[in-house]
Amino acid sequence: MQGLALTASSSKIVLAMFLLGLAAGAAAADGRRRHVSRSPDEPCKKMTLYYHDILYNGVNNSANATAAPATKPTVLSTVINPNGTYFGMLVVFDDPVTEGKALPVSGEEPAARAQGFYFYNMKQTTSAWFAFTLVFNSTESKGTLNLMGADLMDEKTRDFSVVGGTGDFFMARGVATIRTDVIEGFYYFRLQMDIKLYECYV
Amino acid sequence: MQGLALTASSSKIVLAMFLLGLAAGAAAADGRRRHVSRSPDEPCKKMTLYYHDILYNGVNNSANATAAPATKPTVLSTVINPNGTYFGMLVVFDDPVTEGKALPVSGEEPAARAQGFYFYNMKQTTSAWFAFTLVFNSTESKGTLNLMGADLMDEKTRDFSVVGGTGDFFMARGVATIRTDVIEGFYYFRLQMDIKLYECYV
Amino acid sequence: MQGLALTASSSKIVLAMFLLGLAAGAAAADGRRRHVSRSPDEPCKKMTLYYHDILYNGVNNSANATAAPATKPTVLSTVINPNGTYFGMLVVFDDPVTEGKALPVSGEEPAARAQGFYFYNMKQTTSAWFAFTLVFNSTESKGTLNLMGADLMDEKTRDFSVVGGTGDFFMARGVATIRTDVIEGFYYFRLQMDIKLYECYV
Repeated sequence: MQGLALTASSSKIVLAMFLLGLAAGAAAADGRRRHVSRSPDEPCKKMTLYYHDILYNGVNNSANATAAPATKPTVLSTVINPNGTYFGMLVVFDDPVTEGKALPVSGEEPAARAQGFYFYNMKQTTSAWFAFTLVFNSTESKGTLNLMGADLMDEKTRDFSVVGGTGDFFMARGVATIRTDVIEGFYYFRLQMDIKLYECYV
Repeated sequence: MQGLALTASSSKIVLAMFLLGLAAGAAAADGRRRHVSRSPDEPCKKMTLYYHDILYNGVNNSANATAAPATKPTVLSTVINPNGTYFGMLVVFDDPVTEGKALPVSGEEPAARAQGFYFYNMKQTTSAWFAFTLVFNSTESKGTLNLMGADLMDEKTRDFSVVGGTGDFFMARGVATIRTDVIEGFYYFRLQMDIKLYECYV
Repeated sequence: MQGLALTASSSKIVLAMFLLGLAAGAAAADGRRRHVSRSPDEPCKKMTLYYHDILYNGVNNSANATAAPATKPTVLSTVINPNGTYFGMLVVFDDPVTEGKALPVSGEEPAARAQGFYFYNMKQTTSAWFAFTLVFNSTESKGTLNLMGADLMDEKTRDFSVVGGTGDFFMARGVATIRTDVIEGFYYFRLQMDIKLYECYV
């Protein structure tokens, strides 16, 4: 009996370890393990980044600008708001992303670049929709995060989805909470992005 | 031996409960648990919604229109089909989404808004590609779902991916099956969207 | 004691099998089981495909072209590079995708179509951003994969995210590694896509 009991125990331990591996992720050959958060309160990774949109003004800032309108506002832009809501204007960008609020000083590499586009799509108010890639290429992080979502600019905060990741952010998913930090006229704005990942390989 | 056996059993039960927590999701501080469907037959959430595209006709419907072309069709639009397939026309929208088939009556809030864009991209036939956010802001639901996919309009049904969610739809994933419900000329169409989520925090 | 021990063992086996079901996915009514890779080294599905972009040249290739610019480059295109980086040019496509490097011969169906768009968005160099759907409609595969990511054309390889799938690729996620295989002038290029899925229902 004792022998049998021990065998049964051992097999159960083996099975349990196998299950543990399946459920929580087993060590990868490259040492990374899959992690899935059990709840919204426990992200596997958090970071705060600042997105700087420096829009071409059509006149004299082409040297500094990192974003430019590829289409013009449509007629729907001025139906409700005579000043225009830019409905239909699509902007393509390769914008710097930093850990602090300041723009990178000349020659300094930003923490990441945001490459993608937004367009304005509301009649009542100026509000946008974004899809872009955060491209990390520093000593700290190499890889990308892909995001999309509605930027409801009248809300104090709004959430984008992090729908995928590569490199150091292999197969990541999560939520980025966006806050307008500064608007300087129409040609510069800064967004604070609080990014929380809930699926990681770490 | 008995004492030892009991200890082993207890530890196994503790381990098993731990595994159960890892596998099925443990209660979050906010009470939500992660749920992943084991099969395509068992979504964790289902809903049917109707998407109403009310396109600006370039003449006289700017008061009602909630969508407008930001680009014109390209030459490829008329290569095969002399009537034009609109290849290259990109439409930006902030369209109402309802639970029933009717448009919201004046002053009534729709169940959600669909904010995003589509463009036509086939030479042989009129067919589109969509990316958008369903923005829910009612007493029932607050949050967003982010979708993308090819709208193969010649197929009776086609599937978009639900690639992310926020708020009440935190970290959701799933599939939305699309059916053209009504087309009224070129400036109004209604899509039935059967949305099934297979990853939820509920 | 022995009876009790057996009972405990049996219940533990039942529990273990239940856990195994939860963790690894149980057989679906349609026979498909959810599979999640434990590590980046163990995709649940791999494939190599070739994407052929045949861009309308504005003159004489409309019969063959499957992609066309919907917007023009912006002023930022020529700020740094006098030849132009096409910054702001957005291209809509319905391009053939093949298993080998050759274009499909006339009348032959390609392995898939890539339907979506890219745009150029860098000042320093020609570099693009993509979002598209791979539409499979062959005897081997029916369904779609949805991808997005930055196409950093100066890098030897770069990664897109596979953010969703439908049909045979129900709920898929993964990474597609892109390599420029051939560029013939500005109006044809071929990308090799090594697609690895890490979440599948198989």
